[in-house]
Amino acid sequence: MHSFKTPDKIKNSYSSRICQIADERKKGKKVVGTFCLFVPDEIIFAAGADRVILCGGKNETIPIAEQYLPRNICPLVKSSFGSLVNDGSSDVKSCSHFSMVDMVIAENTCDSKKKMYELLGNYIPTYVIDLPQRPDSPEALKYFLSELEKFKSAMEELTGNRVTKDRLREEIKSSNETRKLLHSLYDMRKKDPAPINGTEILKLLQRQYFLSPGEFKEHIRNLIKEVEESEPEENHRPRILISGCPMSGGNSKVPEIIEDRGGMIVAEESCTGTRSFWDPVDEDKEPMLALAERYIKIPCSCMSPNDRRVDNNLELAEEFDVDGVVYYTLQFCHGYNIEKHKVQQALKKAGIPMLFIETDYSGSDVEQIKLRVDAFMEMLS
Amino acid sequence: MHSFKTPDKIKNSYSSRICQIADERKKGKKVVGTFCLFVPDEIIFAAGADRVILCGGKNETIPIAEQYLPRNICPLVKSSFGSLVNDGSSDVKSCSHFSMVDMVIAENTCDSKKKMYELLGNYIPTYVIDLPQRPDSPEALKYFLSELEKFKSAMEELTGNRVTKDRLREEIKSSNETRKLLHSLYDMRKKDPAPINGTEILKLLQRQYFLSPGEFKEHIRNLIKEVEESEPEENHRPRILISGCPMSGGNSKVPEIIEDRGGMIVAEESCTGTRSFWDPVDEDKEPMLALAERYIKIPCSCMSPNDRRVDNNLELAEEFDVDGVVYYTLQFCHGYNIEKHKVQQALKKAGIPMLFIETDYSGSDVEQIKLRVDAFMEMLS
Ligand code: SF4
Ligand code: SF4
Ligand code: SF4
Ligand code: SF4
Repeated sequence: MHSFKTPDKIKNSYSSRICQIADERKKGKKVVGTFCLFVPDEIIFAAGADRVILCGGKNETIPIAEQYLPRNICPLVKSSFGSLVNDGSSDVKSCSHFSMVDMVIAENTCDSKKKMYELLGNYIPTYVIDLPQRPDSPEALKYFLSELEKFKSAMEELTGNRVTKDRLREEIKSSNETRKLLHSLYDMRKKDPAPINGTEILKLLQRQYFLSPGEFKEHIRNLIKEVEESEPEENHRPRILISGCPMSGGNSKVPEIIEDRGGMIVAEESCTGTRSFWDPVDEDKEPMLALAERYIKIPCSCMSPNDRRVDNNLELAEEFDVDGVVYYTLQFCHGYNIEKHKVQQALKKAGIPMLFIETDYSGSDVEQIKLRVDAFMEMLS
Repeated sequence: MHSFKTPDKIKNSYSSRICQIADERKKGKKVVGTFCLFVPDEIIFAAGADRVILCGGKNETIPIAEQYLPRNICPLVKSSFGSLVNDGSSDVKSCSHFSMVDMVIAENTCDSKKKMYELLGNYIPTYVIDLPQRPDSPEALKYFLSELEKFKSAMEELTGNRVTKDRLREEIKSSNETRKLLHSLYDMRKKDPAPINGTEILKLLQRQYFLSPGEFKEHIRNLIKEVEESEPEENHRPRILISGCPMSGGNSKVPEIIEDRGGMIVAEESCTGTRSFWDPVDEDKEPMLALAERYIKIPCSCMSPNDRRVDNNLELAEEFDVDGVVYYTLQFCHGYNIEKHKVQQALKKAGIPMLFIETDYSGSDVEQIKLRVDAFMEMLS
């Protein structure tokens, strides 16, 4: 398997994007930071704001967070919080785009993020979208819609721009195009052997965190072209679906181990994977309603019941012809850890083997994970 | 400090209550089980059903739960689940009233309970009330009200009885009476020295789990009378407010240590404490709306922002003239563990010392807690 080189244009895009945001802000453009798929990009962009995703994937900022937060919560929450409150007095260099954010757009999803946001408000303006916890009731949809309407007003106030239905429709169309491009890329992975590694796809999806929508689209198109032109792989490797918690930029520990040990990740049931783009927004409906309907159905474990996620795992396993599933969770993420039971039962019934890995951002369990992945690969081969 | 003896009548009430429920069920009465203050008793009783509270406080049923649930979630959730799925095949004797429940009435509060309920549905009919996660918005109230209306219909269906406004009003009045009685009891604790131990009060509140509302009222009245007639205590002991996670029946580890080591618990900011009875339901409003308004304001950490709880801690500390606060959490309860930071900051500003204890249902940390409580008492004396 050859690996796909990030074109120089893209490689430099991180620093040029930072400059771009700084420039934009000088000219009065507002930039918001988000942590979750439940916050509709379309509303942010329709308000003429820019956005970066602030989910932390790095271990280094965790000790800073542990001065404020319990140690036994998920590393993603600690890493993100640590980056944001890092005032530079510690030795840890914080990701420089954090200081570029005018406002954090938060959401009430899991306990740890919900309560962390309350502390974050002391350091940076933080707007919170409330969520019902049930995806399939008309009243829940109505409540979520009212929260999105309030959020739209908050964005209008922040930017001074009106969010018109036309602007929303344009952004919905544009986001749907991105979703379609990602579908095309994922379709290519259905081949056996898949023409691109899962770790490459993860890198792509993590870049979405800071790229502008236009740059991200260009990046996907380039990658599709590169994959089309690449020499086909010859050897079958066990085809893996990875399912569970998001993997934020800086965190690629487990996928790397899986592919180093001979596996081939062919799909991700994850917020850095299918959950982020699988379902389009209906372009024919009233735009705010269409957004509410699409976003409330994101199969995150914070929703209950979340049978859609169980079904998605079975469907992805079938569509991508997987040999086994790695159920991946971040330590102390109660939602995905408890939901494991249901997913495992469903996979068992379908005769699909599953390996469960609960981990953090440290390197302390790498050797142990390697051993367990080796045993799993052997079983699948 | 003398201790108050549970009168024989009350001592036997547990077993007689079990018989009572069994009898009632034979005659067609429905019995539901609940886990949380957010489920309004008034609706259950107005439907002519009975209810028991199923929150587990015992360590013994945890190993059963760990066959299904992660080990690193709060002991209350594991203990409760273990009791309910215990089919008798293990050596652990499950609390016999679990098998007496026709339906569990659950609620979407913390991550662990929310996801546990999904598994519980495989063992026992489980109805879930969804909750918005914000206590102070008209839209959230509207959503919660719609959920309570649905719950009312579900109770009507279960029992075959109509829940009329008159029946609701009666039950609201009756529950308010209980609340007033508890306030009178708590008022007596404002004396220095307080005439009754916190461990006695906890036992009382835990009995509420299985007593009928009438019996519970009688029990409070008896206790008030006993306290009035008792010899006043002479020595001042450090006055403690305990704040945090609920202490379900079987769990009194930390209060016992505090009072054994010379402290006197004078108030509990807890669901087995003030949170359960502090605020009355408005008897002059339309009953369903009044219930929604009262229950949505329960200052549980699952709500965000939850400043009401921070304020309550300060107010209780003042009203009950406390010398120090013990912030008590169950291990892996992210909500109360993260919220600790805000409460601690507020207490610090008010000059009130705080001791933080995060624990589980095992005895393994008892010696360590004793040492820390001793040091805290010394500081307060
Ligand atoms: S896992 Fe859930 S809470 Fe986390 S980013 Fe995804 S949708 Fe949001
Ligand atoms: S990984 Fe789990 S605990 Fe962590 S932020 Fe996401 S949903 Fe919350
Ligand atoms: S702490 Fe919160 S979730 Fe738990 S019983 Fe109390 S109100 Fe319910
Ligand atoms: S103690 Fe905390 S984690 Fe446990 S059930 Fe209550 S709110 Fe949930």
